[in-house]
Amino acid sequence: MNIADDSGRSPVPSTVRKAWPHSDFVQDLAELQRVGPLTHCNSNSVGAALMANVLLAVGASPAMIAAREEVVEFAALASGVLINLASVTEDRADNLLLSAEAAQRAGTPWVFDPVAIGVLKFRTRLAHELLRFKPAVIKGNASEILALAGLDGHAKGVDATVPSVDALASALELARQSGAVIVITGAVDFVTDGRQIIEIPGGHPVMARVTGTGCALGALIAAFLGVSPTPLRAASAAAAVFAVAGEQAGSETTGPGSFVVRFLDLLSQLGGVQAG
Amino acid sequence: MNIADDSGRSPVPSTVRKAWPHSDFVQDLAELQRVGPLTHCNSNSVGAALMANVLLAVGASPAMIAAREEVVEFAALASGVLINLASVTEDRADNLLLSAEAAQRAGTPWVFDPVAIGVLKFRTRLAHELLRFKPAVIKGNASEILALAGLDGHAKGVDATVPSVDALASALELARQSGAVIVITGAVDFVTDGRQIIEIPGGHPVMARVTGTGCALGALIAAFLGVSPTPLRAASAAAAVFAVAGEQAGSETTGPGSFVVRFLDLLSQLGGVQAG
Amino acid sequence: MNIADDSGRSPVPSTVRKAWPHSDFVQDLAELQRVGPLTHCNSNSVGAALMANVLLAVGASPAMIAAREEVVEFAALASGVLINLASVTEDRADNLLLSAEAAQRAGTPWVFDPVAIGVLKFRTRLAHELLRFKPAVIKGNASEILALAGLDGHAKGVDATVPSVDALASALELARQSGAVIVITGAVDFVTDGRQIIEIPGGHPVMARVTGTGCALGALIAAFLGVSPTPLRAASAAAAVFAVAGEQAGSETTGPGSFVVRFLDLLSQLGGVQAG
Repeated sequence: MNIADDSGRSPVPSTVRKAWPHSDFVQDLAELQRVGPLTHCNSNSVGAALMANVLLAVGASPAMIAAREEVVEFAALASGVLINLASVTEDRADNLLLSAEAAQRAGTPWVFDPVAIGVLKFRTRLAHELLRFKPAVIKGNASEILALAGLDGHAKGVDATVPSVDALASALELARQSGAVIVITGAVDFVTDGRQIIEIPGGHPVMARVTGTGCALGALIAAFLGVSPTPLRAASAAAAVFAVAGEQAGSETTGPGSFVVRFLDLLSQLGGVQAG
Repeated sequence: MNIADDSGRSPVPSTVRKAWPHSDFVQDLAELQRVGPLTHCNSNSVGAALMANVLLAVGASPAMIAAREEVVEFAALASGVLINLASVTEDRADNLLLSAEAAQRAGTPWVFDPVAIGVLKFRTRLAHELLRFKPAVIKGNASEILALAGLDGHAKGVDATVPSVDALASALELARQSGAVIVITGAVDFVTDGRQIIEIPGGHPVMARVTGTGCALGALIAAFLGVSPTPLRAASAAAAVFAVAGEQAGSETTGPGSFVVRFLDLLSQLGGVQAG
Repeated sequence: MNIADDSGRSPVPSTVRKAWPHSDFVQDLAELQRVGPLTHCNSNSVGAALMANVLLAVGASPAMIAAREEVVEFAALASGVLINLASVTEDRADNLLLSAEAAQRAGTPWVFDPVAIGVLKFRTRLAHELLRFKPAVIKGNASEILALAGLDGHAKGVDATVPSVDALASALELARQSGAVIVITGAVDFVTDGRQIIEIPGGHPVMARVTGTGCALGALIAAFLGVSPTPLRAASAAAAVFAVAGEQAGSETTGPGSFVVRFLDLLSQLGGVQAG
């Protein structure tokens, strides 16, 4: 896919667009499978079980800690942390702030998944508070990235209503301002650190019919943060895993029920490493 | 199935019993798939993921909001709301009351699923408080409907111990008193607004072996409330979807694990609309 | 498997090691399927849905009660209770203590699953408080059992890093001190009351790649406590169910996604009883 518009002008002329090197993918995946990075998922998401199962299938070691005291302690033990806003409560919001602060203090890189911000005022405020603790990666659909950049993302509940490319200019700006790598999910995923833009096509439309797939991608980015040399590589590796396994699983199955089963099986077989 | 007893006398002589028109089903399902109604599920249910996956498979747009402030705000954004008592906590109970009140104020129709009431005093009290906010539909098994009508439903945990037809007289009375459409689930489902009784046979016994199927039906009724012309039609459409897809999935599979997979696949293929 | 070391000396010379009689297994399973024991699972585990689905598949009746008042009331209604520390919060910790106390007072046997203790100080303290209420069974991996016995279990998040046999001496000591039956899970499971040691081989490595399988075993032990003549038999029956169905499901499938599907189907077919 070429993100330049029909006139041939690119909307983001000062950046370099490219496909992500396959050799980086192979190397980071092998490292993840060797290390089994301890990944703390702060999430109340209805898809938390899928999140844990995706990490286990690929070869990471998920932890879903929820007590206030433990959340702080665990930010230093984990090699990557996820902060996910799905189904957040007022109580849980305090935990997320404590976790993000503790991760920053401990030098543990963390992923921010601002689920459904823009739709609701409470979590939009919370999202901006969390940004102070400097996430390594921010992952969202186009509506969420636009909302985080202060624009109207036209979200419908948790779903984006605009294609990922429409948030690209905002993502570049957000990357430069925040220092985080930005991932915009969609039919094509974009990953950018504000200078490079990596395009990752793949996946399958049925993934939008399975609750928690987006949340699970956030968790997998946090797992790769524990092994990849840079946040840009971590985010790209996770997105590539989802693109490749999602596309294959989608093409081999006939609906969202059988898709998840096949997706998890394929994740456990990536790189020739069989589950168990 | 004929609900009249052997003597030929009907237990509910003043009402009309009938099958639900297939054309209504086709029309309401097509409308749901066209609109993708935003449906807010207030639930702590262990089956919340199934709930979301059922809505996504059929073509609705689920949201599982949990922060107090957001619950109130979202009742006006959604086209249908579910209030489900499974695994309710004291804290969560306040949210449910706020959500029901906000839904009533905003004119958003809501479904009440009084899971396991009758067994436990706390949620029996809560259920009666919630009724003040006028649900459009109340869905329960025979034990729950009997308990809500003030009778002993002989529940065993979350499971009914009596057939759905045994709660029919109570359901009619409850419908007239509350103004809500009542759904009694069981081997045969009954849907009534206090005048008409619609019988919906189908489904499969294995559905009782999968956690959250009843909760997911409540969520699907809330989704249909956003598109069907009446609550009676919304409740009937959702029950018919479960009856048809459940019966087919049950007949094609050999246990609860493979049942869920096939059920979700079939839901995504209803009416010829393929997932994605 | 022989737990004696190479020199021929057994590490636990005063105990009797044996396989568990198959006839006990058949008898206890048939009783569970006949009674459908009401089993209260106190858990915030990300695997709570799997927990409920495993109980339903085998034929028990799970309840996941979470309100403080209800937790106390339900401890007397249930025939077995599970206390599981996964994803515990400060609020939830109070509930667990109340539930354990109420179970002890009501004479309802309970299972303690000290998930990830040793790693985090908060839950290590909580675990020792809970032990005062005399669980009938304590189930953990080697790291958790070692930590509960006051040793360093070298846990990595929720995963054990040592084989189950390494915790056997500690388990015997813990059984004698606490009066509980101890289950150490691993490639071989050990069940002991401090005098007998029952070895249960089986299962499949892929089970470590599915979130909540360990938690579900704890729930199944609680279900068997409602029907088996002794805690030793309850724990052994549950472990044997997992060993047999897990081994078969693992050998018939190609990854964690298809494993769970087949595992639940097989659980519903145990002893010739088909789901539904």
